[in-house]
Amino acid sequence: MNSFGKIFRISIFGESHSDSIGVTLDGVPPGLQINPNEFIEELKKRAPGKPGTTQRIEEDTPLFLSGIYNGFSTGDPLTIIIKNRSHKPQDYQHLKDFYRPGHADFTSEKKSKGFAPKSGGGHHSGRVTAALVIAGVIAKKMISQIEISCKIIEIGGHNPWEDALEEAIYSKDSLGGIIECTILNSPIGLGEPFFDSVESYISHIIFAIPGVRGIEFGDGFKSAKLKGSEHNDPILNKTGKTSKNGAGGINGGISNGNPITFKVAVKPTSSIGKTQYTYDKNRDSINPLEIEGRHDVCFALRVPPIIEAATAIAMADLYMINKTR
Amino acid sequence: MNSFGKIFRISIFGESHSDSIGVTLDGVPPGLQINPNEFIEELKKRAPGKPGTTQRIEEDTPLFLSGIYNGFSTGDPLTIIIKNRSHKPQDYQHLKDFYRPGHADFTSEKKSKGFAPKSGGGHHSGRVTAALVIAGVIAKKMISQIEISCKIIEIGGHNPWEDALEEAIYSKDSLGGIIECTILNSPIGLGEPFFDSVESYISHIIFAIPGVRGIEFGDGFKSAKLKGSEHNDPILNKTGKTSKNGAGGINGGISNGNPITFKVAVKPTSSIGKTQYTYDKNRDSINPLEIEGRHDVCFALRVPPIIEAATAIAMADLYMINKTR
Amino acid sequence: MNSFGKIFRISIFGESHSDSIGVTLDGVPPGLQINPNEFIEELKKRAPGKPGTTQRIEEDTPLFLSGIYNGFSTGDPLTIIIKNRSHKPQDYQHLKDFYRPGHADFTSEKKSKGFAPKSGGGHHSGRVTAALVIAGVIAKKMISQIEISCKIIEIGGHNPWEDALEEAIYSKDSLGGIIECTILNSPIGLGEPFFDSVESYISHIIFAIPGVRGIEFGDGFKSAKLKGSEHNDPILNKTGKTSKNGAGGINGGISNGNPITFKVAVKPTSSIGKTQYTYDKNRDSINPLEIEGRHDVCFALRVPPIIEAATAIAMADLYMINKTR
Amino acid sequence: MNSFGKIFRISIFGESHSDSIGVTLDGVPPGLQINPNEFIEELKKRAPGKPGTTQRIEEDTPLFLSGIYNGFSTGDPLTIIIKNRSHKPQDYQHLKDFYRPGHADFTSEKKSKGFAPKSGGGHHSGRVTAALVIAGVIAKKMISQIEISCKIIEIGGHNPWEDALEEAIYSKDSLGGIIECTILNSPIGLGEPFFDSVESYISHIIFAIPGVRGIEFGDGFKSAKLKGSEHNDPILNKTGKTSKNGAGGINGGISNGNPITFKVAVKPTSSIGKTQYTYDKNRDSINPLEIEGRHDVCFALRVPPIIEAATAIAMADLYMINKTR
Repeated sequence: MNSFGKIFRISIFGESHSDSIGVTLDGVPPGLQINPNEFIEELKKRAPGKPGTTQRIEEDTPLFLSGIYNGFSTGDPLTIIIKNRSHKPQDYQHLKDFYRPGHADFTSEKKSKGFAPKSGGGHHSGRVTAALVIAGVIAKKMISQIEISCKIIEIGGHNPWEDALEEAIYSKDSLGGIIECTILNSPIGLGEPFFDSVESYISHIIFAIPGVRGIEFGDGFKSAKLKGSEHNDPILNKTGKTSKNGAGGINGGISNGNPITFKVAVKPTSSIGKTQYTYDKNRDSINPLEIEGRHDVCFALRVPPIIEAATAIAMADLYMINKTR
Repeated sequence: MNSFGKIFRISIFGESHSDSIGVTLDGVPPGLQINPNEFIEELKKRAPGKPGTTQRIEEDTPLFLSGIYNGFSTGDPLTIIIKNRSHKPQDYQHLKDFYRPGHADFTSEKKSKGFAPKSGGGHHSGRVTAALVIAGVIAKKMISQIEISCKIIEIGGHNPWEDALEEAIYSKDSLGGIIECTILNSPIGLGEPFFDSVESYISHIIFAIPGVRGIEFGDGFKSAKLKGSEHNDPILNKTGKTSKNGAGGINGGISNGNPITFKVAVKPTSSIGKTQYTYDKNRDSINPLEIEGRHDVCFALRVPPIIEAATAIAMADLYMINKTR
Repeated sequence: MNSFGKIFRISIFGESHSDSIGVTLDGVPPGLQINPNEFIEELKKRAPGKPGTTQRIEEDTPLFLSGIYNGFSTGDPLTIIIKNRSHKPQDYQHLKDFYRPGHADFTSEKKSKGFAPKSGGGHHSGRVTAALVIAGVIAKKMISQIEISCKIIEIGGHNPWEDALEEAIYSKDSLGGIIECTILNSPIGLGEPFFDSVESYISHIIFAIPGVRGIEFGDGFKSAKLKGSEHNDPILNKTGKTSKNGAGGINGGISNGNPITFKVAVKPTSSIGKTQYTYDKNRDSINPLEIEGRHDVCFALRVPPIIEAATAIAMADLYMINKTR
Repeated sequence: MNSFGKIFRISIFGESHSDSIGVTLDGVPPGLQINPNEFIEELKKRAPGKPGTTQRIEEDTPLFLSGIYNGFSTGDPLTIIIKNRSHKPQDYQHLKDFYRPGHADFTSEKKSKGFAPKSGGGHHSGRVTAALVIAGVIAKKMISQIEISCKIIEIGGHNPWEDALEEAIYSKDSLGGIIECTILNSPIGLGEPFFDSVESYISHIIFAIPGVRGIEFGDGFKSAKLKGSEHNDPILNKTGKTSKNGAGGINGGISNGNPITFKVAVKPTSSIGKTQYTYDKNRDSINPLEIEGRHDVCFALRVPPIIEAATAIAMADLYMINKTR
């Protein structure tokens, strides 16, 4: 299914080869002020152009198809698209016989029974995350008191990572990274256990972002090595403030008013210039592959605004659901 | 919402204090043979009684309320309950003024506006996971060719963990652990990106299990430290077999036919006998708390069958959804 | 699927042959007072025992499995069941070779691939409507300002229908009827077009009630014979009051503050003592069938409380959805 | 919510004033051949230009935004839009102070808290049904063995209705009508009781069509006046063929293999040239209103292809759901 959310629900469409990428937002209250520039600005944060990211210039201008009148949301389904630019299928011509390592070429071929394009990514392309970013702009307006911020804390295993990036560019290799997200001022009581715990909801949407390999809340994997007496997080007063916030702002799947914190592991970019050996369908054997062209050395660098948007979407829906109590 | 799944959908009800815990399964095909003993056996695996787990004896007998006729599923909603045993509210009397560290006492009070029981856990109680185990028995029948197995790989940071457990019991402390899950023989093509990637689906239900703090697929957090050339996972032949399976059997959110692997971090049990200091509502100050009684020193030991069941539930629904293609 | 609703969602389980009939309610706010007697009283209204209804005595006592604590809803899933009484399968023995006219024997056999019971009704049995009535009690509490009332306006084509009923009893025949429903004090603005208009929502749940053949809102089928100038319903003042309410309180799928009105056609009871000729599986030919036993001569007489409950359920969910605006 | 369906799910967006009207289809299998001309042809059937319908020329060309590659569906979300033509807001200028009788001006203003356009219809505009027609083209491909056909059986209460139409045009009045729909070759076993009976599903989507006032299946409201012995519909042989099909091809909410039949009542067009008196917001009093301009005298004439499309959408989803058994 292409949808996420129950009351504030977003539905995404589009592939890297299609006419457009778009998103329909359902459950947006009437009366939100919608300014096209906000979307352009947010899309730029995700856009390439920084060292370690692809140099391909994308200029995404959102087109508003429905749900807006005189600059305000009407409460009806709100659809926004961005056009895909002209593709150069020849860019992928030399790749068409390969299942590129780390890409979805093989699974996409099987899932679509051969009807999806051979390469360039389909509905699971990184390009589709632009729709998440667009939806995130609206989501943030719906929960304007909540502050969500993401930052990179590690690239290629390093905290200062300039050298590692240069080295990767030089050697036609790629790097992954870890992003940390913090949510401040969340109301107490968000989250709908049993199944829709805050962690369930956030992880669901975060794992929709291509390249994500892991997520941990609060003290995460480290907590498994601690004793209860070390890990436990006493409540300090009637506001629910805890002493260490090792639970990452969540107890029993419900926000407790402390900052919600989580970390996300992003794998290294799959496309590398360095020679790889993989299956060649045409010759039914393993052959060398060098993926030239403009691709990110480290797309983790572009992920923070996407995680921010995804988190805002999840929180906005949990907020709306909780409002019905 | 208390439901998970789209075609094979499970809805859970019950709290630790209520008459029963139960689950309704929707989308079960008619004609599955249902044998009560299979449920009893599976519930026993989750039950306490082993060193490091509570000594409280639970004997869960499933009662079949609907959806079964002459020992076979009819295709109608299938409801199974287990009765809760008599509670001794006095067990919790001395805790009622405290927000126990690591528990959902505070969030549950806020979420329920004070109408949930003060302690003993509500709909997010560990007890509710028995309903997951019951649903898992049916889920496994629906995807009988798929093999799911979970094992503990670490307790308290140790691979052989007997000593650590004894030490924790002796010091009235508790431990967490890490569980590894492997799914063999998954068909190629499961997973419905953009939002319902295999990772999204599995993580959603896994984070519904109380005490889970993190999840990683394939090489997980380690992948963020690797170079693309180290991490990439060339395809070896037309069956899609990869060389290292660092992607954990999933590309672009879709199963690729290799084993699906993930690891889950479980925090240490929150209830400990050791003295803790936390907020005491009655006296509006921080006071010492010692939680006596029969509780798990390490409930991670009881988690593997729950993760197995949850994974089976997620896979069964993805399987049914894919079948509609 | 066995569920209805988006925020206030009810899930029904149970068949006439199963251990129990039950309902799980999701999205019930915490703090509603729950009194068992209210359910018993409402179930009695639906129960048989009046002239023209079966003489079989049913005494339905609701059992509360979850979601209630100290007499109040907790906000967690609320499950209520009623036990089915001991069945006498021999009652149906002589029917087992027939597909009874008007019953779901044939479709149920095909749908369940033969795994459902041969007769007595399955998940689509009239008995299942008891679960609707139970859910309706809670729904009404959630929208206590809205008044819903149903009355029979026609039985067997007659407004005073005592004679027709007696005649039908005497001739071992059966009768249908028409029920009118009026909803007063609905807030303005309920209904979520395009797909979830008030009419869409109400008709969806009303057609789930066995035996319903038609529904019309406001001036219904008659409106198709009127001219616009006759039918149009001018607004009289700023409260939205209309002059004739021919639209039945709904414009553009959204409640307009006037009474919401609709009529429901219920077919005559399918089981009749009079001889019928239908297909006999055993002899592969058409043979006479006389359905003796205690069945309703006119189950339409028992339908009003069921329609009231179903309407309350639909309105409660529309109310909750609208609240999120 | 703007969506209908569970596996084959359509989501509609757009209002009469917005940039576009569109639909996203989820759950379309890969490999369906998609030919733009089929959409144009089907949209033309719904288009105006016949006597009794508006003379305004609409030329709807579908634009394919996603989910199609090389003329075939890929299995990813498939989005199709049609552009709205330039509006002349001045057309509605003289109406802006009125709540037009029969229109959603009042309810739309309240629902949108004043943020929707004052007139011209919003997300519940008749224009939005073009998106239904588009979705219907794909739905029919998914259930190509099933034949759905609709015809007008009555306009203004007449079977031959040419004179009535001319008279209505002459007197600047409008007419309603009744449409009959027949579904041939439906597989046995579609429909998912309790809540998703065939009748529930079809009525839900039919009542989303603006102007629908009633629906009845099989012998409908007439059945309420029959005796059981007159109405009952004996099964004739093992294929499930019935003698009269008074049940309209459905028993217990499940298709029985006989033709599925239903009738739909459509009210007369609300916009009439004849003088009406209704509430004038500006002057806070009732004042005369004459709605000049190009509007349908009888939009029921344009409804059959919309009902066909809506029915195909409902049947396609029920078909997909049943396939999972």
